[in-house]
Amino acid sequence: MTSKLQKDLRRKVAKLLVVRASGHALDSQRKYPAWELSNEALQTLLKGGVGGVILHGGSVNELQQRCQRLRSWSSHPILLCADVEEGVGQRFEGGTWLPPPMALGKKYLKDAKEAILLAEEYGRCIGHQARLCGLNWVLAPVCDVNSNPLNPVINMRAWGTNPQIVSELASAFHKGLVSQGVLSCAKHFPGHGDTRVDSHLELPIIDNNLERLEEIEFVPFKALIDEGVNSVMTAHVLLNKIDSTYLATFSKEVLTGLLRKKIGFDRIVVTDALIMKAISNQYGCGEAAVLAFEAGADLILMPENPFQAIDAIVESLINGRVSIERLEESLERRRKEISKLDNKLVESINEDRSTEFIEFGDPNDINLLNKMLASSIYIKNSFDCEGVEQLINLVRVDDILPCPYLSLDSPTLAIPKHFGFQNILIHPLGISPWKGKDTNQLDLDQFGCGSFLLQLFIRGNPFRGQNDIDEQWISIVQQLQSHNRLSAIVIYGSCYFWEKLLKILNPSIPAAYSSGQMPAAQLIILESFLKFKNNQVKIKNNSIEFTN
Amino acid sequence: MTSKLQKDLRRKVAKLLVVRASGHALDSQRKYPAWELSNEALQTLLKGGVGGVILHGGSVNELQQRCQRLRSWSSHPILLCADVEEGVGQRFEGGTWLPPPMALGKKYLKDAKEAILLAEEYGRCIGHQARLCGLNWVLAPVCDVNSNPLNPVINMRAWGTNPQIVSELASAFHKGLVSQGVLSCAKHFPGHGDTRVDSHLELPIIDNNLERLEEIEFVPFKALIDEGVNSVMTAHVLLNKIDSTYLATFSKEVLTGLLRKKIGFDRIVVTDALIMKAISNQYGCGEAAVLAFEAGADLILMPENPFQAIDAIVESLINGRVSIERLEESLERRRKEISKLDNKLVESINEDRSTEFIEFGDPNDINLLNKMLASSIYIKNSFDCEGVEQLINLVRVDDILPCPYLSLDSPTLAIPKHFGFQNILIHPLGISPWKGKDTNQLDLDQFGCGSFLLQLFIRGNPFRGQNDIDEQWISIVQQLQSHNRLSAIVIYGSCYFWEKLLKILNPSIPAAYSSGQMPAAQLIILESFLKFKNNQVKIKNNSIEFTN
Repeated sequence: MTSKLQKDLRRKVAKLLVVRASGHALDSQRKYPAWELSNEALQTLLKGGVGGVILHGGSVNELQQRCQRLRSWSSHPILLCADVEEGVGQRFEGGTWLPPPMALGKKYLKDAKEAILLAEEYGRCIGHQARLCGLNWVLAPVCDVNSNPLNPVINMRAWGTNPQIVSELASAFHKGLVSQGVLSCAKHFPGHGDTRVDSHLELPIIDNNLERLEEIEFVPFKALIDEGVNSVMTAHVLLNKIDSTYLATFSKEVLTGLLRKKIGFDRIVVTDALIMKAISNQYGCGEAAVLAFEAGADLILMPENPFQAIDAIVESLINGRVSIERLEESLERRRKEISKLDNKLVESINEDRSTEFIEFGDPNDINLLNKMLASSIYIKNSFDCEGVEQLINLVRVDDILPCPYLSLDSPTLAIPKHFGFQNILIHPLGISPWKGKDTNQLDLDQFGCGSFLLQLFIRGNPFRGQNDIDEQWISIVQQLQSHNRLSAIVIYGSCYFWEKLLKILNPSIPAAYSSGQMPAAQLIILESFLKFKNNQVKIKNNSIEFTN
Repeated sequence: MTSKLQKDLRRKVAKLLVVRASGHALDSQRKYPAWELSNEALQTLLKGGVGGVILHGGSVNELQQRCQRLRSWSSHPILLCADVEEGVGQRFEGGTWLPPPMALGKKYLKDAKEAILLAEEYGRCIGHQARLCGLNWVLAPVCDVNSNPLNPVINMRAWGTNPQIVSELASAFHKGLVSQGVLSCAKHFPGHGDTRVDSHLELPIIDNNLERLEEIEFVPFKALIDEGVNSVMTAHVLLNKIDSTYLATFSKEVLTGLLRKKIGFDRIVVTDALIMKAISNQYGCGEAAVLAFEAGADLILMPENPFQAIDAIVESLINGRVSIERLEESLERRRKEISKLDNKLVESINEDRSTEFIEFGDPNDINLLNKMLASSIYIKNSFDCEGVEQLINLVRVDDILPCPYLSLDSPTLAIPKHFGFQNILIHPLGISPWKGKDTNQLDLDQFGCGSFLLQLFIRGNPFRGQNDIDEQWISIVQQLQSHNRLSAIVIYGSCYFWEKLLKILNPSIPAAYSSGQMPAAQLIILESFLKFKNNQVKIKNNSIEFTN
């Protein structure tokens, strides 16, 4: 092969890659420098033909500049995507952050019609804001049916626990999303809902057979494919009964056999992020990319080392392991979807071109957030703090440094502080709050006297377990109840935990729940939940005011 | 007075105000919504003639957009300023953050010439980056002589403890700063170095007489005035011997008597932020603005309520309490300084105008940071972790949520974690680490077995005390030494604390010090400080790599 031909081949292969970048402008601002490419590497890759970038972090305004910049580094249209399943504000400061899809799954049980309307608005809101920022591909909706309540990675991200409900809501979401002119992605095929381990930490193994998959897991994917979803993302799960050697992302049986042939999906198949250690440790970065491509994936998301991934795929084409036709097919699928985007979202703009200031605060978005909050917040009695001598506001979070939903000004901390509570945070880097090695009991001596307002931020999140946390906090609630030291409790996140809690909670104890963890939800809860003499919390211009 | 005249008067008075805004684009992104005006209020005020904005927070790219936006809201040239004494990166993510001025004060004692060169570079770097972002007024240099080592608010922000050194270094800084075409500000007149209380929390009272002031405090201000400094900021301190009624900001004796007449300064006098509770509680927001104006200030910084401040000053002019001539004088001084700015920094640009991408990473800036770090880091022995069974990395910070110098990826946490240390953070919202009520002793039972690497982030910071913290941690170091549980110690921040520590630290214990707290300093220290078998930490592309 001549060097000219090889160079052309490299450029073509590069188009299959979607690499990871921070939404910030400068290398020094990257929050995950191990994962996020430097600007130098991004420029080299984009000049070399790389076809897409997944972005994470920064504000909506920075993202807008960033997208413009990335386009200017490429000589052809590129895909710019983000994991904004719960709103642009979930990943980019300043965007709207909505309660998780499961909130609408619950709503559906009471008012299916309203839930479907809200799901469509949900999609519209995300598509609209993504577009304003310059993204052209939204990696949503999640089409997994959360059939396993212990699922640590899908959980509240799912639209429900029933295939029909998930299909209806995800379809409605999709309708709203694509109405804004961005591309969509149904994930994670062939279903990630029935897993108990986190694929970010170890490989989930699923024993379901094809019949069961057809009955549950495939239903929403088929619905979305019927709706014209632009892409499907693969799952890093091993389907023992279908292909006991390769996880779905690397399985020809799953991607080509089931998805392409049996279901008949002929648009883009994209892998989930290949950067996960479980994968790169086992296969190596280059081989992982080739395996996915060989199995039937068109686009390779976040290979650990993009340069090695290109090398390895080029090699697999030269040595005949994969046919050139497969490459041309994937490129054609990519071309076809990109051709559906309007010019604004693909053109490589001159850097001199003006940046419009993004004006968020569309009344439709605000209205949607309020409706979503109203239907996902539950308050059981209010907590009258008067007469309680010493009050401890004990807040449990997954992480600080940073904590996306908590700052010193967040209602969770600011409002109790105003009422004289002592604020204490429990987080993984703090002094151990447990009774010796028993992590199911608080060491109460550490907290002195006083009764607790317990505010728990708990939800199934990727990279964390879930079930252990549930059990731990149920035990602790029981411990505090038995010592008569639980004054009130608020849960932000998991509906599964909330349901477990209600079974053991003393009915006289004031309790509240929000599926969303964002400050807007905290404010609504604490505003109506905490009472102290005539003091009441008022909201004005989105900031807290205290009145007498 | 006709309503037309009154309207004109209001517009003129509005020019005296410098109001506070976040550097972020959207109201929802404000970190301090109680202090930072909403976009609606900013637009109203700027349309009404308000003359300046002080900015805080956001990234350099956001700041650049923000400055452009604020200019577009005003029909006349406005001052855009920030407290970036230690680099644009101190307040705006992505800019360079340098070690504090005191580092050069120390350097001066060993190599005066080099310290002066670095101080000039320091000013150039800040001026250059401020200008890139769109700021036209840098609120620096600090001209206070830190004669009191217990000073909680100036401390490391001063260029030294001796009037001559402060004069030389601040003058060199000033030369570099104004070479970039931005305006400068000498602060805080008549000197804030000899105080023991934090003016953000209570009013500092200074007993020094005029003779002493002439000998120490005035020296750097006079030097800077000779250098042509564009403005002088007042101090919220009470000079008992000069004016026992009014703090300097409100004292005609100090501002008009000393600064204008005796010293002969005829450029802008700007108040320190009037938002401090001690002031607004005592005088009310409108009266505070009038008092400062009446005393001789030209510009009013961060009045608690800008609308009330304008009303009150207008009223004082109408009722004759302050003469119209004073207003015209102040406006003329403002006009004169603004006229020195080149067009790029004052014109009200059309919103369609392009935003250039800011490329930071000027080799001069990087070189300066490296030189500053080299001359402000001290390492006494290295810490060989091999053989130590259990290691606890105990990190003390002023605050989390957020902590500007700490994330999970910061060297302070990431490097010890890699070496198998248990990371524990001590911060005001955590579980109490103290032995009951004795905050001078750690409750060692809480930490289990293991020897400590103690990393203390301690420096005199506004809004916090200082001396108590010093005493507390000296006691704790003694406690750990007496239990043979102190393996190594690193101090980030206060040179005063470091000097106290050296007096009591067992000389065999490895120790390190950096005046700067930024990740770059953490990396340099831990890279050469921690040894473990053949494992060594390497820096590559500004991120941490571990090699065997």
